[in-house]
Amino acid sequence: MFVYRRRVAFSETDMAGIVHFANFFRYMEEAEHALFRSLDLPKIWHLPDGSVIGWPRVQVSCQYQSTAMFDDELEIRLNIDRVGGSSLTMSFEIYRGETRLAKGSMKTACIVRPLGESMRAVEMPVEYAEKLGAIENPREK
Amino acid sequence: MFVYRRRVAFSETDMAGIVHFANFFRYMEEAEHALFRSLDLPKIWHLPDGSVIGWPRVQVSCQYQSTAMFDDELEIRLNIDRVGGSSLTMSFEIYRGETRLAKGSMKTACIVRPLGESMRAVEMPVEYAEKLGAIENPREK
Amino acid sequence: MFVYRRRVAFSETDMAGIVHFANFFRYMEEAEHALFRSLDLPKIWHLPDGSVIGWPRVQVSCQYQSTAMFDDELEIRLNIDRVGGSSLTMSFEIYRGETRLAKGSMKTACIVRPLGESMRAVEMPVEYAEKLGAIENPREK
Amino acid sequence: MFVYRRRVAFSETDMAGIVHFANFFRYMEEAEHALFRSLDLPKIWHLPDGSVIGWPRVQVSCQYQSTAMFDDELEIRLNIDRVGGSSLTMSFEIYRGETRLAKGSMKTACIVRPLGESMRAVEMPVEYAEKLGAIENPREK
Repeated sequence: MFVYRRRVAFSETDMAGIVHFANFFRYMEEAEHALFRSLDLPKIWHLPDGSVIGWPRVQVSCQYQSTAMFDDELEIRLNIDRVGGSSLTMSFEIYRGETRLAKGSMKTACIVRPLGESMRAVEMPVEYAEKLGAIENPREK
Repeated sequence: MFVYRRRVAFSETDMAGIVHFANFFRYMEEAEHALFRSLDLPKIWHLPDGSVIGWPRVQVSCQYQSTAMFDDELEIRLNIDRVGGSSLTMSFEIYRGETRLAKGSMKTACIVRPLGESMRAVEMPVEYAEKLGAIENPREK
Repeated sequence: MFVYRRRVAFSETDMAGIVHFANFFRYMEEAEHALFRSLDLPKIWHLPDGSVIGWPRVQVSCQYQSTAMFDDELEIRLNIDRVGGSSLTMSFEIYRGETRLAKGSMKTACIVRPLGESMRAVEMPVEYAEKLGAIENPREK
Repeated sequence: MFVYRRRVAFSETDMAGIVHFANFFRYMEEAEHALFRSLDLPKIWHLPDGSVIGWPRVQVSCQYQSTAMFDDELEIRLNIDRVGGSSLTMSFEIYRGETRLAKGSMKTACIVRPLGESMRAVEMPVEYAEKLGAIENPREK
């Protein structure tokens, strides 16, 4: 399990006085990028031939159990559920102290976008498969 | 089915050149509010005793099938799947022209927040149950 | 004067119950893009040689006179103050009905980014100079 | 001078590949709140009688000198320029390493919103005046 911490910014709240629900997906994404950074894996990889490797979202979800407020210190716990040939599935739990605020999931696809062409799914580069596979942690749901 | 149209803003794109995935939830929310507005239902209802009726999210999801780009004209199609006693379940399809870009869902709970107290789930006011129930449309998935 | 209208979204409010101040810059930008669209001028122009013409910000400001709330219908009035060789200066007024909520300004630079190089300031293409110059409106401040 | 550090998130970039200009105001605001937190000053102060003390923006500006990119580590330097009776004026410099990316300013007003009434300007509570005044640093511009 990878842990990322971050504080709620004022601009992330809405007029209900709580964090706007869509921002939970930004928190999950920040945790994902902190994981990639810790593994020295680029989120956007520019290859010498001008093509780009990226990771667009395929499916995301979030269940909300309690609210997050301005200035809360959040802990986002990331679990790698599955490293497929060209996909990566992660699950998330967002805590404030001992209270779990939300559970989420993200499935992303590895794509390549050759220079001047459209993106298409691709087998993920071995650097990703090895490093992400090493921390894969299949779980009972 | 309720239809809401809106154009993609520049600030909603990210460095991958496409709409950031979390913004699809804002588009769904805007469609929901356009529906409420069309039914003359307040999204946040301030009652005479100082308490407030609101609709926080319980569960949301989105599947991405194609990308949305700057300046695209999007059509968000909203369907009321279920009007429960204190919950509302909607599904969404996001189109650009004939191309479906994404499918989403949102389950929201009706809550009351009495003045100076915490929020708690509550039976939705009859105005919501009647108007939303009138357009409820259970579907085969 | 060019006029752009748009409604305040729920996600644009903050816990103070009003539109977060930074979102006023998004409203101004949307007005600018609506103007460009109406003149058939691309905001990001991909040239045949792979280089890109764009308009990054040089200087922006906003004065806030009243607050904007969820669901308000805003009118953003855009004035072209000056079309320089490689810069464009606009001013904005944001109204709700008869009430002016804010005044803003934006100075942007025309840049070119040749393929694989950094951006640099450039004389704006004649299409921009002519169309924007035709509606330039120097004003007493 | 107060210093706040933060990394650029992916969702803060736009299709030009750089941080969207409006997000610089969020970075300044985060620095302001980090300063308030370090002084044990609430950003939103709920008084026992139900009224609220807050700090809406009066005037903000930003000059952009270079671009910020995904994953950049930014340093936001905050200076208190003036503590007025009911206003606070701050200036900001945003650096990546030795490179200054932007300079900004914010003037905010202290307001009170009594329960069920509109906000109005108010003399700032002595806790703010004393703590902020102690670090006021008038500068030549």
